[in-house]
Amino acid sequence: MQIRAEDLDDLSLGAVFLATGGGGDPHVPQLLTEQALKKYGPAQLIDVHDLADDAHVVSIGGVGAPTVSLEMLPSLGEASRTLEAYEDHVGRKVDAVVSFEIGGGNSLIPIMAAAGRGLPVVDGDGMGRALPEAQMMTYAIAGVCPSPAVAYDYAGNITTFTTPITSTYERHIRALAMASGGMLTTAEHPMTGAQLKPAIIPGTVSFSVALGKCLCENRGRADLMLPALQNLFAASVYGECRMLFAGKVSDKATRIIGGYDIGEATLTPFGDDGSSLVINIKNEYLVAKLDGKVVATVPDLIVIVDYETGTPINAERLRYGQRVAVFAVGCPDFFRTPHALKAVEPRAFGFDMDFVPLESIEA
Amino acid sequence: MQIRAEDLDDLSLGAVFLATGGGGDPHVPQLLTEQALKKYGPAQLIDVHDLADDAHVVSIGGVGAPTVSLEMLPSLGEASRTLEAYEDHVGRKVDAVVSFEIGGGNSLIPIMAAAGRGLPVVDGDGMGRALPEAQMMTYAIAGVCPSPAVAYDYAGNITTFTTPITSTYERHIRALAMASGGMLTTAEHPMTGAQLKPAIIPGTVSFSVALGKCLCENRGRADLMLPALQNLFAASVYGECRMLFAGKVSDKATRIIGGYDIGEATLTPFGDDGSSLVINIKNEYLVAKLDGKVVATVPDLIVIVDYETGTPINAERLRYGQRVAVFAVGCPDFFRTPHALKAVEPRAFGFDMDFVPLESIEA
Repeated sequence: MQIRAEDLDDLSLGAVFLATGGGGDPHVPQLLTEQALKKYGPAQLIDVHDLADDAHVVSIGGVGAPTVSLEMLPSLGEASRTLEAYEDHVGRKVDAVVSFEIGGGNSLIPIMAAAGRGLPVVDGDGMGRALPEAQMMTYAIAGVCPSPAVAYDYAGNITTFTTPITSTYERHIRALAMASGGMLTTAEHPMTGAQLKPAIIPGTVSFSVALGKCLCENRGRADLMLPALQNLFAASVYGECRMLFAGKVSDKATRIIGGYDIGEATLTPFGDDGSSLVINIKNEYLVAKLDGKVVATVPDLIVIVDYETGTPINAERLRYGQRVAVFAVGCPDFFRTPHALKAVEPRAFGFDMDFVPLESIEA
Repeated sequence: MQIRAEDLDDLSLGAVFLATGGGGDPHVPQLLTEQALKKYGPAQLIDVHDLADDAHVVSIGGVGAPTVSLEMLPSLGEASRTLEAYEDHVGRKVDAVVSFEIGGGNSLIPIMAAAGRGLPVVDGDGMGRALPEAQMMTYAIAGVCPSPAVAYDYAGNITTFTTPITSTYERHIRALAMASGGMLTTAEHPMTGAQLKPAIIPGTVSFSVALGKCLCENRGRADLMLPALQNLFAASVYGECRMLFAGKVSDKATRIIGGYDIGEATLTPFGDDGSSLVINIKNEYLVAKLDGKVVATVPDLIVIVDYETGTPINAERLRYGQRVAVFAVGCPDFFRTPHALKAVEPRAFGFDMDFVPLESIEA
């Protein structure tokens, strides 16, 4: 399969949905990727099973607080120069690139990096959504070493890391991102094809294109879109999709703390009566509580969309007064083992609660 | 000249004096350096003018808040492994090592790194004292690029930097140090012999040994030691040495802010009457004011010693109730150009005042 410039509207739209509020706004990365694909031709999207077991794959994307990317815009060369710096550092060419996370702008960075190199992009990612920390990536959970890793900043400064533990790497890269204006591009968690195959959430790039297309074709009132979305998710690595709430944003506050956007949003019904929904945010929408009762938690996906159009709204664009609907989507099976849940369950974010799978919560 | 294990008491004592309150306590580095010199034999100390112009020299030392080094002790291998990681990164062997700063523990790190390698240590340093930031080093002021640079942390994680501007490098390395427990060893600001010759404060390692010897031999009441110190400094790259104050510590408070020890100390006379001296601290003693009148400022050296013994006291060991004397020493000529002063004058630390050379302030 190919990713052409004209697929990027769908890919980005799907990626904002899957970003569950975080992942960084894909608008500017999309414009840059369009430029690159128009200049160099389509990107080759390959199935992970078509990779040779000894292929050298590196994951590439942006690290930082999503809010920063609204003001500190990326430039066209950053992704490809990050990849070049990685190749210089390890002393070999890579055979393919793969995404950290399909959610948000990081769905596009690998495509930008590969453009003009004839390098394939693996169809899949390391989160199946967006999540705020490196040790929450499936690659790390599957035991892949984060380094050799290379970070490239807006000024062209290059930093390399030899750090065997992903949580330590995460602490270091986050500190560097904050000292570099809030955002970095990194190439990290290098893998062989054999390592990547069991570690990836497969097919999420092409799924994101299909999701964007579905959102576009069914554009309209959120509750009316639900059946089409349910069909699409039921046939994917995800699962159940349900609507949790419809109402208006009556409060929303986040601050950049420790390199993350942290805060919460409160949604109240369109009328005067009824339950209100509170959503906790750490870059992403993590926990949804209806009148105090948990109705969805990370790693399941919580998605806020514009009520009238179904357009997903990420956390840095969520505003007081917006009329919205909230969807929840079951996470890929990869995250449902006790080992994987340790990295991504609510407790990994400091919430004193267990993960309860969406399908076991009464709708 | 050689540095033998039995010279280290003098070297360390001199280095604490020249550290002007900062630089990190040399006690543990001294014990480790003693071990290394006893095992491998003396370190070769060479005059900078004996270096070939094309020699590859790298500066090596610790980066972090001095207070941290009291609790997170360095280990014997850190300095040599930092040097090895640097050589791996640049793909060549170094010909000599040199100190960031003669003040405090960083006087000893290059000796530790060179031990057992037969590598010479250049007699001199990049500060002639201790100062808190990389861009205040004479190497940076002389235009030397900070990178390639390598950082090594307590857990053996290795980070490399390709960062052409020292103030940016300083921001990045400081952020990484804080994310690595507060302290790192780095090899940075690599230079050719030709670059180092005009950029170094020469002779400060052997001077520190001589200073330690002088402090030892004249051990006793601070005011009685003054003539011997004045003779020694007058014949060195420094200049005037005077006693600013004698009294007791009536208040001292520092906090770790942004990776630095920041605060101030107030000294009052032994009797009930008389002027009090306030000293501003950012790792080092930076500005001394007698009843509000500036009596010494950075880059001149402000040194607090125990009143009865003349033993210098660094900021993290300065305590309420200690009976002390305060010396001031003129800085090396390197810092007296307008270009160099920009990096080290009081304004570089946020004080709204010009540098006034010690010798032009009425005693």
